[in-house]
This record gives sequence, C-alpha cells and structure tokens, in this order.
Amino acid sequence: MSDRLDLAPLFSPASVAVVGASRSRSKVGGMVLANLLAAGYRGAVHPVNPAAARAGEAIQGLAALASVVDLPLGVDLAVVCLPREQALPEIEALAARGVRAAIVLAAGFRETGREGFLAEQELIRTAEKSGMLLLGPNSLGLINTARNLDVSFAAGCPKPGAISFFSQSGAMCVCVLDWAMSLGLGFAKFVSLGNKARLNEADVLRALGDDPDTRVILGYCESVEDGSEFLAAAREVAAKKPVLLLKAGITPAGARAVSAHTGSASGSPAAYRAAFRQAGVIQVEEMADLFALAEIFAAQPLPAGPGLAVVTNSGGPGILAADACAGSALTLPRPGSDTLARLAEALPGFASLYNPVDLLGDAGPERYRAALEILVADPQIASLLVLLTPTVAAKPLATAQAVIEVATQRNPEAKPFAACFLGGASVRAGREVLLAAGIPCYDFPEAAVGALCALYDHRRRQDHAPAPPRSCQAEDACDAPWDDEAVAIVEGVHVQGLLDLGGVAALEVAHAAGLSVLPTGLARTSAEAVRLAGELGLPVSLRLATRDADAAPAFRGDVARFSHLADAEAVRHAFLALTNRAARVRPDAPVTGCLVQAAAPASEKGFELVVGFVRDPQFGPLLSFGLAGVGSELLGDVSYRLAPLSPADAREMLREMRFYPLLRGACGGVVVSLAELERLLLAVSRLALRAPRLAGAEFAPVHAGPEGVFIAGARLTLG
Amino acid sequence: MSDRLDLAPLFSPASVAVVGASRSRSKVGGMVLANLLAAGYRGAVHPVNPAAARAGEAIQGLAALASVVDLPLGVDLAVVCLPREQALPEIEALAARGVRAAIVLAAGFRETGREGFLAEQELIRTAEKSGMLLLGPNSLGLINTARNLDVSFAAGCPKPGAISFFSQSGAMCVCVLDWAMSLGLGFAKFVSLGNKARLNEADVLRALGDDPDTRVILGYCESVEDGSEFLAAAREVAAKKPVLLLKAGITPAGARAVSAHTGSASGSPAAYRAAFRQAGVIQVEEMADLFALAEIFAAQPLPAGPGLAVVTNSGGPGILAADACAGSALTLPRPGSDTLARLAEALPGFASLYNPVDLLGDAGPERYRAALEILVADPQIASLLVLLTPTVAAKPLATAQAVIEVATQRNPEAKPFAACFLGGASVRAGREVLLAAGIPCYDFPEAAVGALCALYDHRRRQDHAPAPPRSCQAEDACDAPWDDEAVAIVEGVHVQGLLDLGGVAALEVAHAAGLSVLPTGLARTSAEAVRLAGELGLPVSLRLATRDADAAPAFRGDVARFSHLADAEAVRHAFLALTNRAARVRPDAPVTGCLVQAAAPASEKGFELVVGFVRDPQFGPLLSFGLAGVGSELLGDVSYRLAPLSPADAREMLREMRFYPLLRGACGGVVVSLAELERLLLAVSRLALRAPRLAGAEFAPVHAGPEGVFIAGARLTLG
Repeated sequence: MSDRLDLAPLFSPASVAVVGASRSRSKVGGMVLANLLAAGYRGAVHPVNPAAARAGEAIQGLAALASVVDLPLGVDLAVVCLPREQALPEIEALAARGVRAAIVLAAGFRETGREGFLAEQELIRTAEKSGMLLLGPNSLGLINTARNLDVSFAAGCPKPGAISFFSQSGAMCVCVLDWAMSLGLGFAKFVSLGNKARLNEADVLRALGDDPDTRVILGYCESVEDGSEFLAAAREVAAKKPVLLLKAGITPAGARAVSAHTGSASGSPAAYRAAFRQAGVIQVEEMADLFALAEIFAAQPLPAGPGLAVVTNSGGPGILAADACAGSALTLPRPGSDTLARLAEALPGFASLYNPVDLLGDAGPERYRAALEILVADPQIASLLVLLTPTVAAKPLATAQAVIEVATQRNPEAKPFAACFLGGASVRAGREVLLAAGIPCYDFPEAAVGALCALYDHRRRQDHAPAPPRSCQAEDACDAPWDDEAVAIVEGVHVQGLLDLGGVAALEVAHAAGLSVLPTGLARTSAEAVRLAGELGLPVSLRLATRDADAAPAFRGDVARFSHLADAEAVRHAFLALTNRAARVRPDAPVTGCLVQAAAPASEKGFELVVGFVRDPQFGPLLSFGLAGVGSELLGDVSYRLAPLSPADAREMLREMRFYPLLRGACGGVVVSLAELERLLLAVSRLALRAPRLAGAEFAPVHAGPEGVFIAGARLTLG
Repeated sequence: MSDRLDLAPLFSPASVAVVGASRSRSKVGGMVLANLLAAGYRGAVHPVNPAAARAGEAIQGLAALASVVDLPLGVDLAVVCLPREQALPEIEALAARGVRAAIVLAAGFRETGREGFLAEQELIRTAEKSGMLLLGPNSLGLINTARNLDVSFAAGCPKPGAISFFSQSGAMCVCVLDWAMSLGLGFAKFVSLGNKARLNEADVLRALGDDPDTRVILGYCESVEDGSEFLAAAREVAAKKPVLLLKAGITPAGARAVSAHTGSASGSPAAYRAAFRQAGVIQVEEMADLFALAEIFAAQPLPAGPGLAVVTNSGGPGILAADACAGSALTLPRPGSDTLARLAEALPGFASLYNPVDLLGDAGPERYRAALEILVADPQIASLLVLLTPTVAAKPLATAQAVIEVATQRNPEAKPFAACFLGGASVRAGREVLLAAGIPCYDFPEAAVGALCALYDHRRRQDHAPAPPRSCQAEDACDAPWDDEAVAIVEGVHVQGLLDLGGVAALEVAHAAGLSVLPTGLARTSAEAVRLAGELGLPVSLRLATRDADAAPAFRGDVARFSHLADAEAVRHAFLALTNRAARVRPDAPVTGCLVQAAAPASEKGFELVVGFVRDPQFGPLLSFGLAGVGSELLGDVSYRLAPLSPADAREMLREMRFYPLLRGACGGVVVSLAELERLLLAVSRLALRAPRLAGAEFAPVHAGPEGVFIAGARLTLG
C-alpha cells in the first residue's frame, strides 16, 4: 500500500467477527475461533455461521449471527475463514457494514494463475473503495500477545515477548511458531502477509517500528512488492530497532524457485543485498541464524567495541571460538596488566590468563564468577562469551546462575553476554536458566561468536549511519556543472535510436557528468593519430575503436592497446600495428580507427578499476565497483550499492573490497586518492538517477593513481 | 609412534587392572571402575587399592589387590587413576608385571611446563623399554561398546553404533559423549588421546581403519604429532572408510590459542588443509557439522551423481534448499518427461512438479510417498531430500514412516535420503523415527543440503582418487634431464653462504629443474642490452635487476618493466629509462642492471601466474599457485598442495581456482595449455623434494598462453 497506515483495527481490535466460524476444530473457521478464545481475547467476538444461527445453536459457547449483515456497524476486524468463492461476496458485505479491517485466509488467488489473479483484483477494488485494511489473501492470520489476540489457524500461541515476526510464507510462520514454543521464546506479534494484495512488508514494518511491545523485528521474505517503498520503510524502522530479514532466493537457483512459488519476478540478489545493507537491515544468511540472532538482539545490549573475552573450562572450544573470531570484526584483546594481575591472583597456576581465558577442567561456578567479574571491568573488553564443557567439576546450573549474577549485577556498562554450554542432557538446566534470564546460550562456539559479532556489526553500522540520503545531499558532494549536458547527450542518442554508446561519445557523457576524463580523440588514419597525439601532448596511448559492442571483449587488454607512446613514430607504428592485428584477429569487426588518449599523470603507478551501474527492475540503479581486467567478478571482489549513494555508502564501497589494502599502498600497492574515488562513485550515482534512459553504464578502465582518478573508457547502454 | 601396532590389548583386553580404584564415585578411580562394571565388561577386573586390601574391604563388590605386584602376569590393560607423582612408579611396576597396555589419566605432564615435560619423558622411556602400549597421559580414557568396555571417567556410555571418535582434547570427548547420548547416536569406539606421548592420531586412525565395527571415523585435533606419518595413515584409512576431522586452530588467532593450550607449534592452516585434502580426509569446518556429517555418513550410501530432488509441502523451505544447493556441487535437475507425467498424475493441479517439488500445504503422508516413489526411480536423481512443515494436514510421524518405506523398500539403487522436519514439538516423533531408521533429519534445510553435498563430494573424491602417489609416479610425469644440475646449483649457492637467489641464476635453477624458461641475460650497460637483445632475438622485454630481495617489491609492475621492444633503439631507450627511474624511486637499492628477456610466443595473449613453495615445519613442501600481480593472495584465490604432487593433485590445483574459467577462454580469457601448467607444478614439486636446502621458491611471472607456459622470473630462498 502506501503512506503511513493506522493498523490499530488489525492489531488491537475492540471487536472481532469470525466469518465462517465453526464448531469443528478441524475446520479453519473452528480453529480461528478456538485460538481467539484460548488466547483470552477480551473484546467482543461475533461468530457468523448461517446454519448454526438458523438452528439457534451456540458456536464454541457463543451465539452465532446468521449473516454479516447482522453485525453491529463499525466492527474493527473481520476474519474471513471461507473458501475464495464465498469470501468475495462476504468482503463486499463487510465493507458495507463499515468493518475497518479484514483478514482473508483462503488461498487460490494470484498464486494460482489468471482466474485467481482476477479474483484478487476484485478483492483489492472492494477494500480500496471502502478504505478497509486487508491482510492476505492466503494468510495464516495474525497474533498479538499483548492484546491476547490470536486470529490465526496456527496450532498454538507463543508466550509474550519482545520479538515480532512477519512472513510472506504461512508455512514459515508455522515453523517459527512451533520452534518458538519449543524453545520458550517470547513474541510480541506474528503476522502472515500472504499474497500482500493490500498490506505489504513496508506497512507491517512501519507498524512494528511504532509498536512499543516490539524490540526486534524478524522477517522472512521471498520478494518485496515495491522496492523504493520498502527501502524507505526499512530505513526508517531500522534506525529505531534491529530488523533481521531472511531473504529466500539469494542465488539464481533460489530465485527461480521463488518465481515458481510466488509467480512474480524479483530484483537481483545483489540489489536485495545492497538494499538491506543501505537501509540498515541485518540480512540473515541461513534459517538457523534467524533464531540465533533474534534471541541475542531481543535480550542483550550492543557492545561498545570489538573486544571479546572468551572464558572457558577447556581448551578445545576456546580454540574454536578464536577461529570463529578470526573471520569476523571481533578481536580477542590481551587483557590489560591490571586485569592480568587480578586474574593471576584469582585463578590456579596453570590457568591460561590470556584470551581465551582457560579456567581449566576443574573449574566450578566460583572460578567462573571470579574471572567474569574481573574481565567485565576491563575497558578493552566490550562483550563476554562463557564456554562450558560438562566436566566432572563443572556445575552447569550453578555456573549459569553465576553468569547471570555478573551480567546483571556487576555489569555497570551493560556489556553483552552470551554463552555456549556444550553437550546435551547434562547442561540443559543451565541453558534454560540462562535463556530465561535473557542470556542466549548456543549449542556451539561458532554460533555464539557469530551472534555476538552480529551485535557488534550492527553497532558499527549505527555509529557510521549517516542521515538517510536525500538526493540533494548526494549531489552536494560532487560538483558537476554540465550535468544537463550529460542528460542531453543521452537523450540525443536515444532519439537516434541507438542502444549502445562507446568511444569518444561515451567519454563525452562521462565528462559532462563531472567525471575526470582523459583527453581523447578518434583517429581514423595513422596521420590523424600523429596529429591528435601532438594536440593532446605526448606521451599518449592508443586503443582500438569499434562500433560493435559485441566485438569489444575480443579487443581487450594488450591486444588492443599501446601505452606510453612518447614520439610521433611510435604513435604511427602503434596505429598500424593495432589496426593490422585487429583485421587478423576479428576480420568481421567494424573497426573505426584508434582512440588516441593523453596519459594519466604518473600513469605507470596505480590501478585500473571498473565502475558502473545496471538498472534493477525492483530497486533502480545498482552501482558496482571493482578492479578492471581479469576476473574481478569471477573472484567475487565487487561491491554493490543502490543509487542514490550517500557519501558514507561511497566510503564503504571502497573499504569493503578485499583489494582495499592495495589502494592504501599495502602488499605492493600504491596510495590513491580515496576522496576522488568517492566523488567518482557519487557522480555515477547521480548520472544514473538523472538519465533514466540509461539502462546501464560501464566506465573502464578507470585509472586510479597517486595523482588522481581518470576515466579512460566508457560504454553506455540505453534501454 | 610408528609402524602398525596391534592395539587389541587396549581396545579388546581380556583383563583390566584399575590402579587406584576407589569406592567413591566422585573420585576418578571410582568412576572408572563403576563405568567398567556398568558397561557389563565380561573379562577379569583387578582393582588395586592398598588401603582397601589391607582392611580386607571389597571395592564396588570386588576384592582389592594391595599392589600392582600382586597382579597376575600378563594382564592386558591397566588404567592408572593416580596423580602424576604416584603414576610414574606404578607404570614401572606394571611394565615389570608384563602388562601389555596402560592408560594414564593424570594431567600435569608436558602441557604444564618443564617439570611435567621431564615426567612425560620418563613415562615414555618406561613404556618404550617394555614395549607396553601407552594411551595418554592426560587422557579421559576409552570406550569400546562392542566389548562392553568403558574405561573412562566420562559421565556415561553411548549405545553401540557405527561411528568411532578420537580426540586430542578430553573436554571434546565429554561434549561429544553427552550429545551422542542426548541424540541417541550409536558409537563403536571413543578414544581420548591426551598428550599423545606414545600413541598418536596415526596409530588410532589405523586401528579404527581395521576395526570392523567402525563405519565412520570422527576426530578432533589441534595438531598432529608427525606430519608424514599422519598423512600416510590418513591416506590408507580414508581409502577404506570416511574420515571426518575437525581441526581447531585453522586461523592465526586459533593457532595461537592452540599453542597456548598444547604448548606445541603446529604447521600452517594451509598445510593442514592441503594434507587433509590430499589424504582424502573430510575436513569439518564447524563443530555443528561434526554431528551433522557423522550421522549421514554412518547411515546413508553415497550418491552416484549430483542430482538432488527436493520434496516439500511449502515453498519457503524449498527455496532455502535451492539457495543452499547453488553454492555447492549438487544440482536440482528438472525431472525427466516420464517422471513429470507420473508426478502430474499423482499430485494435485497446483502442485509444482519441477524441482523443488512442492506438494502443497494440504499434503499428507500418501502424497509424500507417491512423489518419492516416482522421483527415486528417475535416473537423473541421485539423492533425495524431504522437507516437512508442520501444517494442519502434515502428519509428521506417518510421513516419516512413508519416507522410511520408500528409502528402504522402493530404492533398489540405494540412493541416499535425508530429511528436514521444521519446527519443534510437533515434529519430534517423526524425527526420532527417521533417526532410528538411519535417515538423518536436520533442523534446517541448509544443514540438510550441506550434509548431502558432503556425501557427494566424498563420492567425487573417491572416483577421482588416484593411487597414493609414490614419488616415482610424480616424477614420471615430468622429464627433467638436468635435475641433478638444479640441485648442484642450489648446493653451490648454499656453500657461498647466500640466503637468497634471484635474477639469471635463479632462472638457471628453474631451467635445470626442467621448467621452460624464457632465454634471459643480464645487461649491465645499455650497449650490452642491445647486444643481448640481438642474440636473444627481437622483440625482447627489459626488467630491472637488483640483488636486494627487499627492494624487489618496489620494482614490480610497469615501473620496472618494458615489454614488446622491437628494435635496438627501443632497447637502449628502455634500459636508460628503467635505470634512471630506479635511481629516482629507490636511490639506495643495489641495481645491477637489466634482465633482457626474449618474449614468450604470442606473449600479448594469456596470463601471468605465480607458482612456488614454502617448506612447512610439519608437512614439508607446500606448493601454491595463483594469478600474478595485484592481490591474488588478498582475493583468496590461491590453491595449495603438499609435495609430492600426484598428477591428479596438479589437475585439481588448476581446476579449483576461481579464475579457472579464464584459463579455458571464458569471460574474456584465453585457452592455455593445462597439460603444460600441470607439468610445471609437478616439476616444482620435484625440485622442492630434491633440493632440501631450498626453504622456498617463487616463480613469477610465469607466462601462460596458447603457445605454452614460460617462466620469466624466479626467486629462491635458502634455509
């Protein structure tokens, strides 16, 4: 839908009608009514069942209404438990009775083909006309534990808590509910979105963002309905509380399975990843992580820094925790000298005082307590992980209580705690006590470190989080006086009916868009090349020019380029060598001559990069950045962000590259101007937004060296 | 230890002495005796306890001996349950009574410093002298369920089964035991290696390899005692049954934690990874995977191919499974047309027949059975994954029984099955039935796909497994007549006391070792450069030559090289430009002139690669292979193997690179000779083995193009 909606009639109704209510608990209409009553809902409940009303029979102890028409005016919420054909006219009737919100549980709509699609359109029209909120169709219903409201046909209701969950898939709701109840996890709200005919994930995100009972938002989605609406809502809500989303279909195979399931094509996995990241959403990679992360985000504070202390009663799990830290942003700082002295006093002689702190196999609760009290006071330690192996001396339950005591009473700076009690039956009681106290206890050290790391990652992102980028802000960072000219050139090309633009014309667009372009001319003969070289100033480089985009890859690299040409003879020679070689290699390619290009300052140092964008169907321009030449994509070292780019996004795009240390001069690299690279990224973002005719653009090679960043080649695609 | 040992006295003793046996179950000597009796051990048991013997009191119902001296001669196994100081003299006495094997449980040996180290040496000497088998010290003991033998101080004994587990860490034994009992997993043998004073992982691996009760071997290790012995044992055993090892300390941080814990430096993580891989061992990445994989390897056959069928009653989990497949070797083939026709007949209209096969939310056991029967007969399907969401219609227990029936009775080709029943309490009964029938049931789709993929990976490795490489075989693949000369040059350099060799001399070693080296000379003046260019034949390239290894990185890339020099003037110009520039950039570097090098055939096409080795302290020469230039290491695209390399190893080293498609001409790459690249790798492996004076070597750049593979640069390190 759109704008901010008041979802109170849905989540906190004063009265509920169950249309198609039934005595039988094996029917959907019976389950919904039973769930509502079992949850202890305190508002008015109106079961609608013509047969029962006619027979004067009660339904689950309540008098039945014969028809929707008999409902009092202005009921808050109606749950329609009837099959598609019967549901449609009832929705009309409900709208006529001024019902403010409806949930349609029936399947058989858009997800099943044309006939269902038309039925869904009718549903939408009815709801739109009357301004009625509509959840579903194909929904499992919803739960709001704070209002004792369970209008779902799920098999149970979780206890109240701080986590809220929404899901596109009803099945995923069923699984999560079942787990939540088995684990004893508390939930605030459960929402099954179904087909999202009216209410979509953006609406529900906003409502959960405003909900005082919800501390953490968990979601499962296969696709989003409207990319920019979703982005705006996610950005707004993620600034207030953690939003964790499991996106299914993050690979080509998965994306195919999504469209088989929902019948809708979605954006590219890279675009979703960029969208989540830029909105501040935490993307959950596996289903197992959904729970692991929900628990810790719901109950633990965020750490102030990367330093993790690991306390263990055996070496092995400590090592596994250290291994898990290595790939993450967490560090295992050596305790300060004060801390070391206090640990040495408190622990036996063979204990390892460094980090992981090994209390030894004969450690009991008191040793854990002593070590944790000392470590929690160390300024370098920002979070604590307690590992326990069920040795003879370990007392899991008493140790759990010691951990809780330190975490709650000796922890003035509110540092987050997590635990991993290894084993099965012998540690169960300890785990349960921890969980009840809000200290998540994981099965394995790696999962515990992963959860603590997610807390820290979120904290870092919050610290660096810029104000949501308005387009003007992104523009301020890059002064490009000839912006309109860039758009005008693209429009001109579009009018000519061309789909593709390369060579000097594409470089002109880049120049007009405010990018630093190396002075370049097209030479059709060797004499022209020599003249141009003289005009541009020696040394120059020569590159084959072709009109045919398909032929371009065959002309990449050394085959098609001569650099550092220092005199006229060298230029003439290079022109002939290139054009002759091209005729040999690709006799069919329409070679138009050679681009003659001034050398970049200090061109013998630095890197060749690629910057570009494609227009994602769901999220708009998706910018990419990587090393030029062989295999940057193959090696997976490409960073992506959606336009509009904020200056912080541009900074991150550079810093998250694995090759980033090279740009700082490490590993034999060269120090390049990051500020200029960031300006380049911002300018490409702006071009993508200003020139909607462009389906994509690739600027390559981009020479980045100590003297600056210069575009040497460009190719634009019109769509 | 070494060679093949008969471990029968340890694993299947006819009689057991418990030295330091106690009435009290809270003492180690009491726990061991109680465990032994509770397990139902049927051999003779001799508790030794001087005080009890003097008082004439029974210990746990058995008459106590006053001293080890009173033991009958030739007892098979003695478990020494005394602290270090008392244990040492008892071991002497046990040896004197001809006891064939001893387990020392006490800690306080090598792991605690110098005094403990000396005590451990004494223990070793005593055992060596008498030929007594020795497990420990610092061991938790061992369990052999087939012989009702539990001589550990662990808290319980698992039921008999096909999995055996060994561990360097006693704590890890405790955890695994506790889990095994909670999950109801069956085990054959449990061995806690402790300090490995005599018996190490190689000995135990061999024994478990020969053990008819063991179908899968599981291990946890922090370091191995002897790299080559371990490799030989692992290779031999992995050829017979799956060996799964969790190696702790696979990152620098983890490796530091290992040496803090065990007091011993171990080989590099890359070397361990290569060792496991070349031996056919399955390296387990996380503790959670240890169980996930043990279950499936213990009970399911290996699949014949990559094709996986996913059957589900809801879309979401199916999509997550498809996502998990995408990063793996498994595929989701479209069912054949026969299969599709049969599925269409058996399933309702809206079901998705493709793969994942979605049976819809109202599917019950019969629909699962029908779909599985059809899919298991499809020749493209090699393994099957059953996903179940606890919907209203789903009957987890009955569905589990249907799955078992198809897997056991309708599965003539023995295709492996796995399941993932999502949720908590409502699917528990179904899971237990599956587990009991040997069909592993996972919590999440990703874990299930991971386990099935590990089965297939193992099958692939078996299919491609070459005969264990003897050195001669590796040599046959590469004819290098001047091999002795390469060794002789290295010896000469060693005699001169040099630690480092570059330039022409290093290339001579490469040439002598049978590598194709580009003809190269050292020019000290520009005139000499022109003369050499004439001799080598134009075009040539020029590269700065320096004696100083430290200065070399400053001279990498374009700063220090001119290529494609086609005439004398260009050569002279390049010489002057290079040496002048060097004097400016690094005035302190000892530049000796320029290397003049003939161009590789078709040098404008192809790639620059790096091949080299370093000598790992634990495993010997570790070869590496990657793209030259910026950041191949930074991007993590380097492959490693230990020498001696088999031809299959060399093939795999190329094929596992992410940039491999480039070498086949994809993504704008060029087709290069893989056979020549493999020969190069084999030759470097041989050089590393033949010239032990070499601490390491790096051949870079190596030009690989359509016309062949040519070494253009080399640098050798002597150690």
